[in-house]
Amino acid sequence: MECQNYGLSRSIERENLNLNPLQRGGILPAAAREALYDFGDGYSVCDYCAGRLDEIAKPSINGFLEDLAKFINVDAVRTVHGAREGKFAVVHALCKPGDTMVVDGNAHYTTHLAAERNGVNMVEVPNTGAPEYEITPEKYKETLENAIDEKGEIKLALLTHVDGDYGNLTDAAKIGKICQDAGVPVVLNCAYSMGRLPIDAKAMNMDFVVGSGHKSMAASGPIGVLGMTAEWEELLLQRSSRHAKKEIEMLGCTSRGAPIATLMASLPYVMERVSKWDEEVQQARNFVEKMEEIDGVVQVGVKPTQHDLVRFETPAFHEIAQKHPRRGFFLYEELKKRKIVGIKRGQTEWFKCSVYGMTPDQKDYVAGAFHEIAETALD
Amino acid sequence: MECQNYGLSRSIERENLNLNPLQRGGILPAAAREALYDFGDGYSVCDYCAGRLDEIAKPSINGFLEDLAKFINVDAVRTVHGAREGKFAVVHALCKPGDTMVVDGNAHYTTHLAAERNGVNMVEVPNTGAPEYEITPEKYKETLENAIDEKGEIKLALLTHVDGDYGNLTDAAKIGKICQDAGVPVVLNCAYSMGRLPIDAKAMNMDFVVGSGHKSMAASGPIGVLGMTAEWEELLLQRSSRHAKKEIEMLGCTSRGAPIATLMASLPYVMERVSKWDEEVQQARNFVEKMEEIDGVVQVGVKPTQHDLVRFETPAFHEIAQKHPRRGFFLYEELKKRKIVGIKRGQTEWFKCSVYGMTPDQKDYVAGAFHEIAETALD
Repeated sequence: MECQNYGLSRSIERENLNLNPLQRGGILPAAAREALYDFGDGYSVCDYCAGRLDEIAKPSINGFLEDLAKFINVDAVRTVHGAREGKFAVVHALCKPGDTMVVDGNAHYTTHLAAERNGVNMVEVPNTGAPEYEITPEKYKETLENAIDEKGEIKLALLTHVDGDYGNLTDAAKIGKICQDAGVPVVLNCAYSMGRLPIDAKAMNMDFVVGSGHKSMAASGPIGVLGMTAEWEELLLQRSSRHAKKEIEMLGCTSRGAPIATLMASLPYVMERVSKWDEEVQQARNFVEKMEEIDGVVQVGVKPTQHDLVRFETPAFHEIAQKHPRRGFFLYEELKKRKIVGIKRGQTEWFKCSVYGMTPDQKDYVAGAFHEIAETALD
Repeated sequence: MECQNYGLSRSIERENLNLNPLQRGGILPAAAREALYDFGDGYSVCDYCAGRLDEIAKPSINGFLEDLAKFINVDAVRTVHGAREGKFAVVHALCKPGDTMVVDGNAHYTTHLAAERNGVNMVEVPNTGAPEYEITPEKYKETLENAIDEKGEIKLALLTHVDGDYGNLTDAAKIGKICQDAGVPVVLNCAYSMGRLPIDAKAMNMDFVVGSGHKSMAASGPIGVLGMTAEWEELLLQRSSRHAKKEIEMLGCTSRGAPIATLMASLPYVMERVSKWDEEVQQARNFVEKMEEIDGVVQVGVKPTQHDLVRFETPAFHEIAQKHPRRGFFLYEELKKRKIVGIKRGQTEWFKCSVYGMTPDQKDYVAGAFHEIAETALD
């Protein structure tokens, strides 16, 4: 048989400014590109393995995990295949089918799937609705207490640190404390925060944190981070009864190849960028301000934004789409002409975007392009 | 904080001949190196995703999965993070905690962990013991029937196609038929076969097959293959009740990055090399023959070998170790001098190795080096 042509080239990131928030935090710095080159083959990190991935000394996965644990302030940390796989492992270790967990109403779909795959029911903390869609500590507390009253026991709580719909940053420390006071272990989904902004799991009163290498830690996918306090190590990292070195929830080893090499190579770069998060937020706010100068473009979610992922309602562009010969495709196409990508084809009523990691000039160029399109698309 | 130096360079594969069987099948061909370069960033394959990884058309993941399904003759196929994660998904979907499955006695440790993580008990089919350690259809049948008698119901059977200890190739077609006749669904672990030798899941009467991209399909880790017949699609690929596009056992999406790009790029190369498997086996036999010319080196496992992974008992080298000033380290060090790696430091009583994918001259050079060491190490 002959293989089809899979079109295996990707120049989108080299030739354009990509506004897709999913892609902004996963771009490799030079050091990670070098690691990718050296560790591209199959089981490349396993040359000197004595049975435990987390203890490999060459390359120094053990040293890396020590640094990573300090960086996010947890007692133990493992790499997993992504934030979702980290959440699944926590739910799997702590809950039985039929149990109930509490999750915030802005949780990523993979939180729902991690629960569903484990047969665990969810009680959801509603957000405040339009226009802010905020998860408040008060509502979290009320929902958690009601759930405990009703179900008797809540095995686990989950909070999304920064959600992927609005880029809202939740008050993790306060909600962590609420869960702690209620005696409910709590996991923080940091897929959009770890690697972008500082994470201090203990200061946030979290039992577990999960992060995403490909989403926010400048690593090749798929890879994630699962951090925990000492009290959970025994349960989460329990060894096999038959293979004494192997951790059951990890299925022995997790990241066996290029993704962990890139995550390791990127850590110094990620630590540096995290230290400049305040500047990045200020620039995101400036970007929002410029975007909102367009009549009919409004940021939704908490304002001023606390994250680079921002969501706009854009009746301005939707009105143009009604009259434009290219209809809803005009926005995508006009942006593409200007070497800007990452807004879905056909989408004009609203969109999410991020200019994270772009230079100030690039950010201005993007905002300027939207202005120009709003003003001239129907000319 | 300052990061430690992780020693993130790897020249072992560029500068030496690597006998580690784990590494032989995962070396990237040029096309996969190009894909690695283009798809190195984070979520690189997700630019044009409409919610289903397996349906992405650019790059053509959907076309690739069609080809892959044909290549191994299954009705449906997904990529997972590795063979172990594929086995876990099958056990998770088919079994409940407390259920029993039958596995062969040469199964990889990750088979045991996939069962243990699911709380599933195992009944093991013993191998024939020294020197062949074979899993026979007769013994599989007997064990399966006894298990059914004793437990009432066996939810799943697993067979290791080629084991990682002896490189024995099991009679999958016959054992598949035995399971089929007993009404027990069966999964074939092809981690050491898919990508090296032809796999025809239907001809082998298998309900499921799993493979490993990093072990045997010339792909960057971590990635695996999970193939199944049509009758299992509904269960294994069941969609979320809440997110209609998302498959629960896959947690939505699995391989989101470089590993799938390299697996795709390597498929034509892998198909080509699989077609030459008979030659490769012949060369492995020649290699064994040359090795056994050394007095005190004997291949164990089924003879003549049916796979490139071969295990030798090596009293010849163990005796030298007793007298050598470097004791057990001499073999590793003598090989290293000759630019040969992949035998563990200190190991002299026995070792596993593979010369898969090396040129005939390189294979001769390796066998010659062992001869030379046996003859001269104590000079």
